[in-house]
Amino acid sequence: MSRPSHRDTILTSGLRVVHEHGFNGASVRDIVQAAGVPHGSFTNHFPSKEAFVLEVIDLYLAEARLNLRDTLCNDDLAPMHRLRKYVDANIRHISLNDSRNGCLFGNFAVEASDSSEAIRLRIVEIFAEVEKCVDYCLMAAVSVGELRADTNCQELASFIVTSLQGAYLMAKARRDPTPVLNFKEMLFSRVLR
Amino acid sequence: MSRPSHRDTILTSGLRVVHEHGFNGASVRDIVQAAGVPHGSFTNHFPSKEAFVLEVIDLYLAEARLNLRDTLCNDDLAPMHRLRKYVDANIRHISLNDSRNGCLFGNFAVEASDSSEAIRLRIVEIFAEVEKCVDYCLMAAVSVGELRADTNCQELASFIVTSLQGAYLMAKARRDPTPVLNFKEMLFSRVLR
Repeated sequence: MSRPSHRDTILTSGLRVVHEHGFNGASVRDIVQAAGVPHGSFTNHFPSKEAFVLEVIDLYLAEARLNLRDTLCNDDLAPMHRLRKYVDANIRHISLNDSRNGCLFGNFAVEASDSSEAIRLRIVEIFAEVEKCVDYCLMAAVSVGELRADTNCQELASFIVTSLQGAYLMAKARRDPTPVLNFKEMLFSRVLR
Repeated sequence: MSRPSHRDTILTSGLRVVHEHGFNGASVRDIVQAAGVPHGSFTNHFPSKEAFVLEVIDLYLAEARLNLRDTLCNDDLAPMHRLRKYVDANIRHISLNDSRNGCLFGNFAVEASDSSEAIRLRIVEIFAEVEKCVDYCLMAAVSVGELRADTNCQELASFIVTSLQGAYLMAKARRDPTPVLNFKEMLFSRVLR
């Protein structure tokens, strides 16, 4: 295997740094230090911090899409089981690094949407994509009778994606994944019953 | 009436600035410029940006407590009506400034909790206070028969406060209060039915 390029190293290390410290909290200096590359490497590869962060978002999204494919969009599994699997995968993800990180998309929604319209629009687009996957799963649940036929799947999907963001935010504030576990409990015992 | 002191002006203008641009996004220079006071005034009154932000949080909390008192904790109103009133007041609050601001507490949970342990702990404490008010209102709803006797009010209160934070985050990202309106619809039609 060839050595990863400085570009790839900056992106993977940079993802870690901005996930933990945020768009404004992580400087380019922090990012090149974490990557172990000279400062000039950053400016060679990325015209701006915004351009870099848009690529970091794509890197994080690629991972998130694998999860969506294996869970919500996985037609081999029963629909409610997929939804559980999706929430469980996110609980594991949120619990990493002592639950300090939260969800990169939600973090950027809060703290980069004021600085960068391009980042804000990209995040809104990604939330819509995730919502579509939840909707797809819920419609499958209706079609096999796991949910009532009169369920408004789109509205419910939007509620689930939105509320999960609240649970990630709370977990990050408390450094504790319990809010996401509570969300799961409430979702299956009360919202979807 | 006496003229407000520089200290008060910095706090009220500063609240507006950090609410819109964030803990890391708003510099001390932005804050003194918005307040129309010399830079030295800031350092005279506040030993650090963290100390300033902790006071801004108290200012915002004072306003939030008035709302809590008039809605969730208002024993003159029927409990479910209080909860509706609480959510409606927050929809109005979130809609200000083209829905750009979000909730100051949620914003700081995301973007200041990594930089300042004092701010993080204060925010966690405030979320617990709001949760207690929701719990108080839900217990009243149980006692008058507006909610089932077997309702786990504490768990439900935690879910409501957490999910509302998700709705504020989404509204901020989209510059549109619809996610909070959707939350309200789902809360009363599905979660509390």
